[in-house]
Amino acid sequence: MSELAVFSGSAHPELAQQICAHLGVPLQPTRLKRFSNDCLEVQLQANCREQDVFIIQPFSAPVQDNLMELLLMLDAARGASAARITAVIPYFSYARSDKKDAPRISLGGRLVADLLATAGANRVLTMALHSPQVHGFFSVPVDQLHALDELATHFQAYDLSHAVVVSPDLGNAKNAAAFAKRLGLPVAAAAKERIDDTTVRITTLIGEVRNRDVIVLDDEIASGGSILELLQHLRAHGARSVRVATTHGIFAGTSIEKLAAEADIVEIVCTSTVPIPLGKRLPKLTVLSVAPAFAEAIRRINSGESVSALFYAEPETLPATGTAG
Amino acid sequence: MSELAVFSGSAHPELAQQICAHLGVPLQPTRLKRFSNDCLEVQLQANCREQDVFIIQPFSAPVQDNLMELLLMLDAARGASAARITAVIPYFSYARSDKKDAPRISLGGRLVADLLATAGANRVLTMALHSPQVHGFFSVPVDQLHALDELATHFQAYDLSHAVVVSPDLGNAKNAAAFAKRLGLPVAAAAKERIDDTTVRITTLIGEVRNRDVIVLDDEIASGGSILELLQHLRAHGARSVRVATTHGIFAGTSIEKLAAEADIVEIVCTSTVPIPLGKRLPKLTVLSVAPAFAEAIRRINSGESVSALFYAEPETLPATGTAG
Amino acid sequence: MSELAVFSGSAHPELAQQICAHLGVPLQPTRLKRFSNDCLEVQLQANCREQDVFIIQPFSAPVQDNLMELLLMLDAARGASAARITAVIPYFSYARSDKKDAPRISLGGRLVADLLATAGANRVLTMALHSPQVHGFFSVPVDQLHALDELATHFQAYDLSHAVVVSPDLGNAKNAAAFAKRLGLPVAAAAKERIDDTTVRITTLIGEVRNRDVIVLDDEIASGGSILELLQHLRAHGARSVRVATTHGIFAGTSIEKLAAEADIVEIVCTSTVPIPLGKRLPKLTVLSVAPAFAEAIRRINSGESVSALFYAEPETLPATGTAG
Amino acid sequence: MSELAVFSGSAHPELAQQICAHLGVPLQPTRLKRFSNDCLEVQLQANCREQDVFIIQPFSAPVQDNLMELLLMLDAARGASAARITAVIPYFSYARSDKKDAPRISLGGRLVADLLATAGANRVLTMALHSPQVHGFFSVPVDQLHALDELATHFQAYDLSHAVVVSPDLGNAKNAAAFAKRLGLPVAAAAKERIDDTTVRITTLIGEVRNRDVIVLDDEIASGGSILELLQHLRAHGARSVRVATTHGIFAGTSIEKLAAEADIVEIVCTSTVPIPLGKRLPKLTVLSVAPAFAEAIRRINSGESVSALFYAEPETLPATGTAG
Amino acid sequence: MSELAVFSGSAHPELAQQICAHLGVPLQPTRLKRFSNDCLEVQLQANCREQDVFIIQPFSAPVQDNLMELLLMLDAARGASAARITAVIPYFSYARSDKKDAPRISLGGRLVADLLATAGANRVLTMALHSPQVHGFFSVPVDQLHALDELATHFQAYDLSHAVVVSPDLGNAKNAAAFAKRLGLPVAAAAKERIDDTTVRITTLIGEVRNRDVIVLDDEIASGGSILELLQHLRAHGARSVRVATTHGIFAGTSIEKLAAEADIVEIVCTSTVPIPLGKRLPKLTVLSVAPAFAEAIRRINSGESVSALFYAEPETLPATGTAG
Amino acid sequence: MSELAVFSGSAHPELAQQICAHLGVPLQPTRLKRFSNDCLEVQLQANCREQDVFIIQPFSAPVQDNLMELLLMLDAARGASAARITAVIPYFSYARSDKKDAPRISLGGRLVADLLATAGANRVLTMALHSPQVHGFFSVPVDQLHALDELATHFQAYDLSHAVVVSPDLGNAKNAAAFAKRLGLPVAAAAKERIDDTTVRITTLIGEVRNRDVIVLDDEIASGGSILELLQHLRAHGARSVRVATTHGIFAGTSIEKLAAEADIVEIVCTSTVPIPLGKRLPKLTVLSVAPAFAEAIRRINSGESVSALFYAEPETLPATGTAG
Repeated sequence: MSELAVFSGSAHPELAQQICAHLGVPLQPTRLKRFSNDCLEVQLQANCREQDVFIIQPFSAPVQDNLMELLLMLDAARGASAARITAVIPYFSYARSDKKDAPRISLGGRLVADLLATAGANRVLTMALHSPQVHGFFSVPVDQLHALDELATHFQAYDLSHAVVVSPDLGNAKNAAAFAKRLGLPVAAAAKERIDDTTVRITTLIGEVRNRDVIVLDDEIASGGSILELLQHLRAHGARSVRVATTHGIFAGTSIEKLAAEADIVEIVCTSTVPIPLGKRLPKLTVLSVAPAFAEAIRRINSGESVSALFYAEPETLPATGTAG
Repeated sequence: MSELAVFSGSAHPELAQQICAHLGVPLQPTRLKRFSNDCLEVQLQANCREQDVFIIQPFSAPVQDNLMELLLMLDAARGASAARITAVIPYFSYARSDKKDAPRISLGGRLVADLLATAGANRVLTMALHSPQVHGFFSVPVDQLHALDELATHFQAYDLSHAVVVSPDLGNAKNAAAFAKRLGLPVAAAAKERIDDTTVRITTLIGEVRNRDVIVLDDEIASGGSILELLQHLRAHGARSVRVATTHGIFAGTSIEKLAAEADIVEIVCTSTVPIPLGKRLPKLTVLSVAPAFAEAIRRINSGESVSALFYAEPETLPATGTAG
Repeated sequence: MSELAVFSGSAHPELAQQICAHLGVPLQPTRLKRFSNDCLEVQLQANCREQDVFIIQPFSAPVQDNLMELLLMLDAARGASAARITAVIPYFSYARSDKKDAPRISLGGRLVADLLATAGANRVLTMALHSPQVHGFFSVPVDQLHALDELATHFQAYDLSHAVVVSPDLGNAKNAAAFAKRLGLPVAAAAKERIDDTTVRITTLIGEVRNRDVIVLDDEIASGGSILELLQHLRAHGARSVRVATTHGIFAGTSIEKLAAEADIVEIVCTSTVPIPLGKRLPKLTVLSVAPAFAEAIRRINSGESVSALFYAEPETLPATGTAG
Repeated sequence: MSELAVFSGSAHPELAQQICAHLGVPLQPTRLKRFSNDCLEVQLQANCREQDVFIIQPFSAPVQDNLMELLLMLDAARGASAARITAVIPYFSYARSDKKDAPRISLGGRLVADLLATAGANRVLTMALHSPQVHGFFSVPVDQLHALDELATHFQAYDLSHAVVVSPDLGNAKNAAAFAKRLGLPVAAAAKERIDDTTVRITTLIGEVRNRDVIVLDDEIASGGSILELLQHLRAHGARSVRVATTHGIFAGTSIEKLAAEADIVEIVCTSTVPIPLGKRLPKLTVLSVAPAFAEAIRRINSGESVSALFYAEPETLPATGTAG
Repeated sequence: MSELAVFSGSAHPELAQQICAHLGVPLQPTRLKRFSNDCLEVQLQANCREQDVFIIQPFSAPVQDNLMELLLMLDAARGASAARITAVIPYFSYARSDKKDAPRISLGGRLVADLLATAGANRVLTMALHSPQVHGFFSVPVDQLHALDELATHFQAYDLSHAVVVSPDLGNAKNAAAFAKRLGLPVAAAAKERIDDTTVRITTLIGEVRNRDVIVLDDEIASGGSILELLQHLRAHGARSVRVATTHGIFAGTSIEKLAAEADIVEIVCTSTVPIPLGKRLPKLTVLSVAPAFAEAIRRINSGESVSALFYAEPETLPATGTAG
Repeated sequence: MSELAVFSGSAHPELAQQICAHLGVPLQPTRLKRFSNDCLEVQLQANCREQDVFIIQPFSAPVQDNLMELLLMLDAARGASAARITAVIPYFSYARSDKKDAPRISLGGRLVADLLATAGANRVLTMALHSPQVHGFFSVPVDQLHALDELATHFQAYDLSHAVVVSPDLGNAKNAAAFAKRLGLPVAAAAKERIDDTTVRITTLIGEVRNRDVIVLDDEIASGGSILELLQHLRAHGARSVRVATTHGIFAGTSIEKLAAEADIVEIVCTSTVPIPLGKRLPKLTVLSVAPAFAEAIRRINSGESVSALFYAEPETLPATGTAG
């Protein structure tokens, strides 16, 4: 494939810089202008013609501004005759809008997938979508990374002889199991029940946590509410200590302060898919870099090497119609 | 909207006949021809021009023939200047192919959704998709019914004082809970764990089943394997009796015979979304008709009345920007 | 056409209420939810099935939020089987991004036109696009209103015997001439010159303003800078008084205060295409309602009457191939 | 469906007038302007909003101007919010470009079908396509009429006791047979052989023509060359008289004069799908009107009645899945 | 272009193996899974990223399963970021559904062409389409091979001094003539007539067959009915011997046995576009390999050399606007 | 990118020849055939497979024939598997149809942009569009050249000490200013006023022309009417001499004769974007070649170098999110 040209929107330039450093390529400059009527305009300030363009922009807050900025950058790259354009979206927040659980609601996950294609994205590179089905919302090829290896490596530094991985809900249990397997740990999970139209409550803890060092794993922490609720159950069941691990550390409002204020939460670990402002970088918070993973995926996409080889365990091959070379 | 014209493919003409009987309209004739080279051709044998056309075809076995027949019928209706074409697919079997859990696999659910649109479907009416996210695979409007009311009405005839609803896996637990709520019953669920790449096993039963009359609820029974596995756990936990309820009664191979041979399975209840051949209609099997539900949905779609009003509980309205009339 | 269903986004509910009042139909309720991760979700809270849906949302600040909210509402209406969906965008702010005057910049006007179609808009109703060519950016039919009649009616109440209409630049002069014709007034215009890459300056005033009561007409006032610059030239050329008229009164930052502070600006007149917060409703500001114009256009679109008949002067018919009935 | 609005391009206004007379509706006026740079612009001079618009334009010479004029009219009707737009193309001349018989040639038939859809045609009404497969080039519904009934009615006025229908080539023989059946006559055909890359010659006459009154039937006569070649063979085989019948009487250059100059050609009959200038209306030429056929088809399309009922013999119905009402 | 990656569906793996052997590349493995509910899933088991992917699958019986399998493979290759995907369909059986000869019938040829594009095919490589117009059904580039050279080479081994090529119907006569030209032989053809809606009968033999060794050429033999009917006419006209040649040897039911049972049929020759089961490989049947032709075409497509140069005789160039280099 | 293959339509083969000469590549031959029914067919007579194809065709008169010929060539190149197809349209005449200034008129500029994409154009290379917004009509990337450098170089040969650049209307004034800047000259402009629906008249001359050598700059001269009208005003204001410069020298009818007949018009300068027949090459006319500019742009497009670098002055970069390499 042609030469790499990496650009960043304004959502998370630090991550983009780190990815470029790992790739050994410059981060190409971009100009973002906000007109007095609040409209945005972007200019890609390096030649895109026949380049393999990657534009890095997680959908962190302000989500709508960051989304529109990415759409404008995709449009600019297409108009500038890029050979191929990959939208790199480390945090695809609209994935949570993945089903119609009420009449006449918007299906934001599918809509944003369509908007990206309309604006010119030829492919998408993302991490840890809220549900695996969201992959099917895209009409362009998607490579989805996960951060389980980064998180597992971090925890392997600890004494895990009495540890257990806990998933705050059963929907996320599959990821928790895959994570636990990497660490050689057992897994437990909270079961939730819908009380009424607006309330969902944890009702059961499946698996043993008594006297255990708990590692809670969730894909995303925004308000922190479900972690705090889980904490009460963990205490009630006699957990010894609690560490919280998540891919996307949104930490809306004062959620990080509330979590850190809980004495039995020893550590909170997230990755760098979204920017964490200095004010939220409390002593208990550890931020793991996903830049190496994104850099390696971009390198492979550009050079035509298998990306899935990195991230899947290949299933045993059944009898096939052909024979490998 | 314009006049109704209802056609049926060859997958399930009995259901189509019943739907038409409820609607009080004739089932329009269709001619299906298989050429000596195994290609299919269909002819819609009634005027479609400016009609509101509905074509009824579940994706039961032989799935590929039934799918292609539907695509050809959609194409014929479009070419014949139908005003609007709704694909009525009581059982959308490809919904199970909803995620990429291995590299380079097909995503059948999204592909079939796209094929339907290509062939001319303007909308889809279906029932009980395997996962709610599959709704987002379609680029045309979808109305998704469920059979929980039909199933609940059936079981209300029994003494339910010691009954419990059991979901064979946690992914389906939300539907089981909604079903249990209709019957005023508690709910339990089996938790599964992936042993290796090809094996998934039930490891836990959450909730109480001892001395209970169990109603197992699943969206689809094909090989029956997971029900048989669940049965062992129910016995081990002292369940008193077992009834099995499902929307889509596929009953591949000898699965229905195997289930019926289990003495503690008292009854198997499914709906008429797919045809059940006479040879499989064993004494323990009860088939509930979904024809009234589909007829009512078709009537509402044709007349422009709300379909969701039937099937959702409307969430409490939050403060809104407008005021209702 | 089918029954009207009018919804409003959160940008300008007052205008939507007034339009509905003129139409004699209720404004249907909408629910807007912002998740803790800053994503939006909308629910249309009235039946849309087979309705002729109009969604009212000007692209006022915060533009990106208001745009995304509209896209989500369009998506929800499409998924809810609306018969037809018209995006009513009284102020289409991205129209200013209508050309590539630098390499590799985004073309926001065309992009947003495409996004609207992707999200489900079947047609667009708007007012006073920044340039007439922007009409050609849309792949769906567009009806474009203007506010010249509303503005002219307002000024007819004054003694216009010594008045002149002044356009702040020559690009807008055509509209100024049409406006002046309605009032029976002469027209003048400022000519601008590009000094360097970032500076454009008024260099000439074409036409006579000495001892005249000037009515400055512009399509949009955002920062107010070009009006203030024009004011200096008007003073230098001996204008007697100045009134400012505009369709879109954006008044970013403290622009309205700055304009009102100029003693020789007697009045500022704008329309209600965008919301004007109470704090900006200074004594010198008059806001004319465009609700009657939008209501009439919506009524005609719904009933299939000519909209253009209202807003164009029909050109004299040349010899044609047919004969009118 | 909504109200009819019929427009005509400049190719054949007489036919459009006659169709409107049969329909009892006015032909709506159109303005065609040719700029000094040779570009065209059209204006539809009657309200199209929510109308069922039909635009009549055969692809007669100058083909490219007439095609572009139709595309512009379709675009104008779409932009003017027509409810539905039908391109009425009595002579679709590009149908002859229906296959790739040399490398890297254009496939004009398919291209023009795509251009019509791009410009806004929702459906096409045409007559006597050069090959039946061309129907499959269109992505919009097509109604294809034929003129066999009009032609047959004309010839029924003659003494046909010694007549025979002759097809000038075997590709057209199917239509000739259908035409002969209507008249109760035998059929014969010329077989052609490709001599070299640019020459095709008639080599055989299949069927008996000796002492017969021959009616030659062809779909289109342009240069007249193949008719003149056939004539030599008919003479050589002792035909008594010759009449020539065709749907599309193109008569390029002096072809009509050449044909009329042949003493044994008694009559040339064509239809009014293309305009025949006065200078070509020689005494031997009879032009049959297709206006009644097009008017009836338009009436049925507008009212939602079956069009095919007019033009196909319905095949015997095989056992079908439904039962007719 | 990038590196070749050749995959095979399950329709005809032998042909795929032979093509790969000629190309000197491995046949990449594919896994096909049929779920208990009869749905299919495919996995391409070799890296596709930035590869030039070819997927080989003729539409032989079971046609619908083979078609769906190909669509799933195309979808998988697209999702796996193939640089380009060519569907290699040696036998495109749906080409016979190429016209609407009855109202409201499906047009399978065009529909399948559209489905292939929807599923991700960027181009198609096929052989001997039933009619040349079917090329125009595709919106992606098509390369169409023929087997006339393979067939001609086979027959050149015989004494052809008294041979004649016979086409069983006039529609196929053009191919028969091209084939005869390769062998330096005369050509004859049967003329068919439609007796009623379901019966077509041979009525005439054009050309001389008496005392000749006949080579019947047809594009496809499925039921064999038209060959058997032709045989009676050949006998009646005194043919000396009969050999049958065809590209696509479908041989449905017992057709091959019936043909072989005719004493005066000396040999039946077909190609390997579809698999011929062992039980049908009777002594009289010769199967010619098309693997070299497909391998050469794939090689040229991959390397950007002219494919048409192989298969067309270039027409004499008329005066052109440019000059060749 | 792959190898260049340049073709020319019949509109302007001389320009194509010159461009190829500058590029050092052969002009590939094309065959254009006009059938007796006036339909066109083209054949590209050199291999296109995997080539980077450029097709050169200005939209000069006969516009419709030249447009259709280009569409057919694009279609042929796509069907022949070109790697990329660029429509090179030195004069895009339909750009003048860029707005809806009357109800129900066609928007030719947008329509033709869409037709080009439908026919297979992947990109467009053009020069001096009538308004800059027309760029936004295209859904494919556009590179727009201008001829200001060629024109400026020509005039630099003269004594410009008393010269002034005059724009015949204010809409074109921006280009006139850019042109004047290249020559270090002042600029003046005529202001027009709409008298009634069909008449526009020059009413004012802004800037000083007395005793000046005027260079009138317009993008296109077709009828020459506005130049002649301007001439009267220039005389009235005491201009000393007049030279006329334009990019597109259409010179419809006898316009060039009329212009040349004016004694005070010393010279008329245009470029070679459209062919100028020998009869119009009067002594006062100078035609500057744009072949070098187009050749350089094609070379850069093919090699992936920046095209905009040639034609824009890069705006000063504001603080950006990245850092240049």
